[in-house]
Amino acid sequence: MANLQIQARPKPDRKPVETVIAALAASFGNRLVTSDAVRAQHGNTLTWIGNQPPDAVVFPQTTEDVQKIVRLCAAERVPVIAFGAGTSLEGQVNAPRGGICLDFRDMNRVLAVHAEDLDCVVEPGITRKQLNEYLRDQGVFFPIDPGADASLGGMASTRASGTNAVRYGTMKDNVLALKVVLANGEVMTTARRAKKTASGYDLTHLMIGAEGTLGIITELTLRLAGIPEVIASGICPFPSVEAACKTTIQTIQTGIPVARIELLDALQVRASNAYSKLALPETPMLFVEFHGSEASVAEQTERFGEIAAEFGGGPFERATQAEERTRLWQARHDAYWAQVGLRPGTHALASDVCVPISRLAECVAETQRDIAASNLVAPIVGHVGDGNFHVGLMVDLNDKDEVARTHAFLERLVERALAMDGTCTGEHGVGQGKMKYLLAEHGEPALDMMRAIKRVIDPLDIMNPGKIVSR
Amino acid sequence: MANLQIQARPKPDRKPVETVIAALAASFGNRLVTSDAVRAQHGNTLTWIGNQPPDAVVFPQTTEDVQKIVRLCAAERVPVIAFGAGTSLEGQVNAPRGGICLDFRDMNRVLAVHAEDLDCVVEPGITRKQLNEYLRDQGVFFPIDPGADASLGGMASTRASGTNAVRYGTMKDNVLALKVVLANGEVMTTARRAKKTASGYDLTHLMIGAEGTLGIITELTLRLAGIPEVIASGICPFPSVEAACKTTIQTIQTGIPVARIELLDALQVRASNAYSKLALPETPMLFVEFHGSEASVAEQTERFGEIAAEFGGGPFERATQAEERTRLWQARHDAYWAQVGLRPGTHALASDVCVPISRLAECVAETQRDIAASNLVAPIVGHVGDGNFHVGLMVDLNDKDEVARTHAFLERLVERALAMDGTCTGEHGVGQGKMKYLLAEHGEPALDMMRAIKRVIDPLDIMNPGKIVSR
Repeated sequence: MANLQIQARPKPDRKPVETVIAALAASFGNRLVTSDAVRAQHGNTLTWIGNQPPDAVVFPQTTEDVQKIVRLCAAERVPVIAFGAGTSLEGQVNAPRGGICLDFRDMNRVLAVHAEDLDCVVEPGITRKQLNEYLRDQGVFFPIDPGADASLGGMASTRASGTNAVRYGTMKDNVLALKVVLANGEVMTTARRAKKTASGYDLTHLMIGAEGTLGIITELTLRLAGIPEVIASGICPFPSVEAACKTTIQTIQTGIPVARIELLDALQVRASNAYSKLALPETPMLFVEFHGSEASVAEQTERFGEIAAEFGGGPFERATQAEERTRLWQARHDAYWAQVGLRPGTHALASDVCVPISRLAECVAETQRDIAASNLVAPIVGHVGDGNFHVGLMVDLNDKDEVARTHAFLERLVERALAMDGTCTGEHGVGQGKMKYLLAEHGEPALDMMRAIKRVIDPLDIMNPGKIVSR
Repeated sequence: MANLQIQARPKPDRKPVETVIAALAASFGNRLVTSDAVRAQHGNTLTWIGNQPPDAVVFPQTTEDVQKIVRLCAAERVPVIAFGAGTSLEGQVNAPRGGICLDFRDMNRVLAVHAEDLDCVVEPGITRKQLNEYLRDQGVFFPIDPGADASLGGMASTRASGTNAVRYGTMKDNVLALKVVLANGEVMTTARRAKKTASGYDLTHLMIGAEGTLGIITELTLRLAGIPEVIASGICPFPSVEAACKTTIQTIQTGIPVARIELLDALQVRASNAYSKLALPETPMLFVEFHGSEASVAEQTERFGEIAAEFGGGPFERATQAEERTRLWQARHDAYWAQVGLRPGTHALASDVCVPISRLAECVAETQRDIAASNLVAPIVGHVGDGNFHVGLMVDLNDKDEVARTHAFLERLVERALAMDGTCTGEHGVGQGKMKYLLAEHGEPALDMMRAIKRVIDPLDIMNPGKIVSR
């Protein structure tokens, strides 16, 4: 197990961080916490990457609070790490060099909703469910839905997506502008509220996916979508993963504006049946959803059913009741917890890759064969409309051989995706866990450019150090 | 008129550029041209910004050619300026410090079409019409259509969009990856072909809209769209610009997936009637297009007609013949030339701004009042679904007073857009013409970051200098 832990650096000089903590205590009172329990909760907790707690946790309430914290830390070269809901999977919130964690729990307000413009302005601590609850009676919603009820600041920082991305895009497509506190404590606004612009370098997209290594987001302007008139969900069984993938490709190529199209392999269906009390046939399955007018949804549903039948799938069963639909998608979002239930006592490890959709069937099938050959337990779920899938590994951390086989499998998973012109992560981000794959994916010139950008924007390397390209 | 010209810098030392030209001549033979006529054609020609020709024009045929050229220029600190179709409007192709222009005329191949993945790989010199001609029988198309038949490299570099952006997005949404030659001559690939990724900083978007100031694009991976089953276009007259804008807002809010929704004010309709031999009523007009299945298009058309009627517009007349549709959109794309025809002997100057759509009616109406009060001739056309509109000023450059009034008007146009949380340019880019507005739009911290990025990526300031943030 030791080899899985991020190695701790030699004990650093405690004086700078103690200076910062003393100054923060004076300013923030009981909004500064240094207890071991709270610190541990703010390091990585969800995956097998070791927990590296920050030295203290502070709860800012305004952008000015964030500026003050960053300035104090910059003066002493103490790391700052932003924290939303703590649901990241690659160690993004860990503090390998210690430092101050900024928990955005108290910055979770909706600052403005512009329904006519289909946008809103929020603070980074609000979660996606809180936001949609707030928007509910205004006819609009925010479509990006990672499995967890993540915070919007965290979702922007990891370039998150989810089941709706095939129709509505990812965070990169749904953030119009950001307010960001930079490493020197200054506040930058990356863009205005106009839907498009050709004015200057795209700083918004530079910050999205930067995982807090280039600055700390304190405000987001988000694109919203109108709540569709009709939402129709359903499930469709397939004889094989290939048949489900081919149906997906054809559905998208035909121009059916499918809102969600999610693959569960047979093992995942078994897990979800048990965890979510469903009674689905244990065969590869697509969970599908269509948005539109009554006529358009009826047409989409019919066409999808025809395509599925062509590949030996079906019948497509439409969930007629709203509760049934909710239960279906709750089951999909609970896939991770269902996986955990498959093999109690083991540790869950969720990894994701993304390939061009034409390679998806092949990539998933090869991965399933690899799982079997490696004697591992690992259901697969996928946002297949985007070519993105997740492998949920249930690992017995006491079994050294299994741990070694898991490591080797994960390397091959990424190599396989890269060989198919894919990426080492479709939506989980790099954090600490996937740093080692960046060179193979991007090549030296691109990685050099990332490093150069990091250096010039954060010359003291205090913004979430030890992630992406900072070592 | 003198005040409109970009002031030439003091004559620089000719030796470095002569060294480069001699070396290029040895390598490129007659693919290097130094004649005055060809040089002048490669400076700004379409607008009143003065023509600043490069010292020589070279026609690369491969990425390796581009690397060789950039390395030769870097060694002598000679500027390099990429050139596609030369249709940019803000002086993006000018060579204020001289240097070598790379004309991508010979790099216009389609390298791959992946129809299943809805993407393709092209060289930067191909124009949007050439690309769609190539794709025509494969069931897919590339939707971004600025008025001019621009090159894809130029379109990516200026973050172009056009009439389809309301449905299909802009260049920022339709470029998956770029191959870029950097200032040191190295080749960087910004991303892979996967539809989404959370792996590292977003270098693709950093290059889109950078106008060649951070590197030279030598290959683009583009997203394609399926050719819709049914395309229905039509026109709809309105009693006022406000009524047309309100109809647009409501159409988008209702979730009608309109593919194009273009405003022409009464003066533009008059100009287009004359230039394109149409016989439209000279009143504000929306040109609209719907994409989808027969049923979906019928439904969209009906709903749009109802919304237009609510605001006193209509009737919506659907163009039933394909030729009629083509003629309509040709007229829209020829708006610029129609404007030129309005006042022969004057100089056309096209400027664009973009505001949140809720402010569009107000912004256009105020701008029309300003045009009238300034005693200027300036039709307005707009990609109103995006809140983006163009003012086509016809200026008598011999009339100093008119020139002064035009300058003052343009300042107010941008101030008005910025005051409404808009941008100084929705799709034309910054080039030389809009550099002066960047501080007001972005603020000092964002501008500082743009400058820092420029410095670290292009330390010798040889990549298209004198544009965006390089002075």
